[in-house]
Amino acid sequence: MKFSYGATPRGHYTPAVISRGMVYISGQTSLDGSTGLPAAGGVEAEAMFALKKLDPILAAAGCTKNDIVMCRVYMTANEDWDPINKAYAEYFGDHKPARIAVPVKELNKGCRVEIEAIAERPEE
Amino acid sequence: MKFSYGATPRGHYTPAVISRGMVYISGQTSLDGSTGLPAAGGVEAEAMFALKKLDPILAAAGCTKNDIVMCRVYMTANEDWDPINKAYAEYFGDHKPARIAVPVKELNKGCRVEIEAIAERPEE
Amino acid sequence: MKFSYGATPRGHYTPAVISRGMVYISGQTSLDGSTGLPAAGGVEAEAMFALKKLDPILAAAGCTKNDIVMCRVYMTANEDWDPINKAYAEYFGDHKPARIAVPVKELNKGCRVEIEAIAERPEE
Repeated sequence: MKFSYGATPRGHYTPAVISRGMVYISGQTSLDGSTGLPAAGGVEAEAMFALKKLDPILAAAGCTKNDIVMCRVYMTANEDWDPINKAYAEYFGDHKPARIAVPVKELNKGCRVEIEAIAERPEE
Repeated sequence: MKFSYGATPRGHYTPAVISRGMVYISGQTSLDGSTGLPAAGGVEAEAMFALKKLDPILAAAGCTKNDIVMCRVYMTANEDWDPINKAYAEYFGDHKPARIAVPVKELNKGCRVEIEAIAERPEE
Repeated sequence: MKFSYGATPRGHYTPAVISRGMVYISGQTSLDGSTGLPAAGGVEAEAMFALKKLDPILAAAGCTKNDIVMCRVYMTANEDWDPINKAYAEYFGDHKPARIAVPVKELNKGCRVEIEAIAERPEE
């Protein structure tokens, strides 16, 4: 097991843990750390903000978004799905991980989107 | 990483992604694609409908339901658990994957059940 | 795939399933089996109760909590996060798995916390 960063954890977790060639990435919300608020610009912008938080974490673990095998997308309202999905499809382009969409009661600090992912580390 | 089908994706995902001998299967709701509505017949029938969607996806990935290692069962009401569990036990028979039951706020298009699974590919 | 116990399952699941060197652990709620109620003492005590249920399951699978790679923490209210997190940090000490916090609608029998985990089996 290896601990990998790429972002500063704000709690009792590691951004990514590498185990047996897989990278387990902690949930990334749409919280903008510079303001302490959800990213501005509407729910599509929130989704893109959360997705882009994956990039430095993947890079630190020796991966890119094209190595993601599975994503879970947590959202606070089903009616937000279309804008979230738009950001999701734009972020991934031709790459299509296995996916689960999970509507939840609420997310931390009013965020409307959280993403978690498992990636395959290419070099192993 | 290999992409495997067995069902036609209706969005930006692949039904199953194979990585390091494991099969990561996208969430399968009780939505009946032929009607655009949740499967008819009550929540037990919905659960069985969602579970049976796993079969062709597993088959395309070289597995059967007996290769499932872990399932997450999302439901919209705790009081639906007994009928969901009845379908679940009937579907799996003697096979008992690790399991997590997750009551959620709502699911896509009024579905009351969604299933996701990870399977071990036997031939690897 | 190997089935591992360490706890008596109260439903159609196995407490832990071992596959390709990883241990997939079923969701552990704060339900106290001796009373049929959530563990007494407040939400922090509930969280610790659920976390400690992992110990015998990990032991039976040849692991300890220091082998946990990723945890999902389900809770019924965001405002319970601080006491849950306190128990979580105390349980894990210096070890910091990847983590996802998932606020859900409700949990079984009034529980306020459920934990699931994936561990790396050291001997493989």
